[in-house]
Amino acid sequence: MSAAPRPSEAALIARFFAPLAGPGTEGLRDDAASLAPTPGHDLVLTADAIVSGIHYFPDDPPASIARKALGVNLSDIAAKGAAPRGFLLTLALPGDWTEAWLAGFAEGLGQASRDFACPLLGGDTVGSGGPALIGVTAIGEVPAGAIVRRTSARIGDRICVSGTIGDAALGLRMRLSPEAAWVPRLDADARGHLADRYRHPRPRLALAPALLRFATAAMDVSDGLAGDLAKMLAGAGRGAVVDVAAVPLSPAADCAIRMEPDLIEAALTGGDDYEILCTVAPGDLDGLRAAAATAGIALAVIGTVVSGGGPPVFRTEAGPARVFTTGAFSHF
Amino acid sequence: MSAAPRPSEAALIARFFAPLAGPGTEGLRDDAASLAPTPGHDLVLTADAIVSGIHYFPDDPPASIARKALGVNLSDIAAKGAAPRGFLLTLALPGDWTEAWLAGFAEGLGQASRDFACPLLGGDTVGSGGPALIGVTAIGEVPAGAIVRRTSARIGDRICVSGTIGDAALGLRMRLSPEAAWVPRLDADARGHLADRYRHPRPRLALAPALLRFATAAMDVSDGLAGDLAKMLAGAGRGAVVDVAAVPLSPAADCAIRMEPDLIEAALTGGDDYEILCTVAPGDLDGLRAAAATAGIALAVIGTVVSGGGPPVFRTEAGPARVFTTGAFSHF
Repeated sequence: MSAAPRPSEAALIARFFAPLAGPGTEGLRDDAASLAPTPGHDLVLTADAIVSGIHYFPDDPPASIARKALGVNLSDIAAKGAAPRGFLLTLALPGDWTEAWLAGFAEGLGQASRDFACPLLGGDTVGSGGPALIGVTAIGEVPAGAIVRRTSARIGDRICVSGTIGDAALGLRMRLSPEAAWVPRLDADARGHLADRYRHPRPRLALAPALLRFATAAMDVSDGLAGDLAKMLAGAGRGAVVDVAAVPLSPAADCAIRMEPDLIEAALTGGDDYEILCTVAPGDLDGLRAAAATAGIALAVIGTVVSGGGPPVFRTEAGPARVFTTGAFSHF
Repeated sequence: MSAAPRPSEAALIARFFAPLAGPGTEGLRDDAASLAPTPGHDLVLTADAIVSGIHYFPDDPPASIARKALGVNLSDIAAKGAAPRGFLLTLALPGDWTEAWLAGFAEGLGQASRDFACPLLGGDTVGSGGPALIGVTAIGEVPAGAIVRRTSARIGDRICVSGTIGDAALGLRMRLSPEAAWVPRLDADARGHLADRYRHPRPRLALAPALLRFATAAMDVSDGLAGDLAKMLAGAGRGAVVDVAAVPLSPAADCAIRMEPDLIEAALTGGDDYEILCTVAPGDLDGLRAAAATAGIALAVIGTVVSGGGPPVFRTEAGPARVFTTGAFSHF
């Protein structure tokens, strides 16, 4: 019903996306790709979309947006214990897209694709009629039957989280309220760290083998630790007790929270961490920690799975235990 | 950055989409699905999105929109000789979505999913910040190595097309220009047929086994016969000669074109046919036709693959041969 005086979709694909194409795609000159898992493996499939003005800022660099779109999907792949095999891209562009933007996007997507060893397998480019939307379907693989599920935690399991929590939520706050008192009091490195963590998810793909071997359940933290932990354990009919002091914070987040203690709530409930939340039987905890260390990924023990299905209880040394009943940050 | 006072995404999934979920999805209570092809098979992956106001009318029934979103993807799966295994859905909703719309959408999607034996494997629901977008990644499977490619036609192959061509393009014209002289002169059944063909693609899944066995190349006709044939043969470095009189028309389209001969151009270049365009060695033509007949799908021989890479030449009995240099209808 509408046609813009623009390069054809075929020309865009050939110029920007064919260089990213993996095997089985005929260089994106066909309408579908073929893919077989490594013998003895299952494929693992997930889809997440990010929308301009909702999941990222319209003026974010296009290379960052591309990395985020792929990264948030590969975070799910990692949490299932899987290794990436490829992805499909649905790119819905606003009416005012430019070739410079698209070139930057494709450049960033190509770099992320190489960094994560995850080639492009196909996709579609359409006009959005509104803001940009970048939809990705990511495909990984695990040994047959070995996918690490979300709702399989058991009572007594220890709860672990990778990396650090809250950086992205604070990076987003900083961006939305640069006039907040705590922001200028952080040094430039700390501000840069928080901003980068919001913009550039780091899917914990290196942790996948450790999860496969030791975790009883896992998911990625995308909508806030408190809400995602609640989802994980509600699905298992379990609860959790979390020691807030054990939740791993970066020096930047720690510094911000010392200046403004209420920010701990943003850190625990804000989204976009893209860390791994997992549970492990107490007897496998040392094994999981050693495997994570070998993978070069920090892993903190933050609590324990308990019976009963209420929301996770967050305990602090000083002050009452907290329950975050409002749930997770919602992207929707 | 934004949060609407709406049911949570988890609540929407549980209510509307979990009933559509296939095996390996944990009822959509995990972030990813597991899937393995039947032993000895490859998976076939494709992604296509439809956008409100571009690929369908905002006031189309939501069940029709859902069927179209899945149908256009399964048309690609069929063209590759594959059988459906499942799909992932990216649903980007405008700010003013209603539960009634979503209920209708889910109902239509469920019906289409059952009709095509293609369960839901996962997805994402986001706000679009603009019109609705429905993105589907469809997954099929073929015997290992057997995917039917687009660009593998050989000189001398016969060119075939399934069903009838141009109905959807005329249905769209009728909808856009109901005051056109030819529209009221069609009877209600004919108008209903054309409108239905625009709204409800019929992926030719039953033809897949015949394509696997006999076709040298195949693709679906989604952007217009002339343009898609040009794409198919340009990729092979070949040309085509097509006999316009042999292009299969429905009684409704035939009637409209008799009244308004220029409509033949809309029929040959308009989009949304979702028929199969394929090539076959002359010695396999009878086998292909017999297999198509067994599958209950009409198959017409419309031309021949020739040497040289120019655009397809459309020959008519009266008047000069035509070349459609403006290319296919573009959805972009």
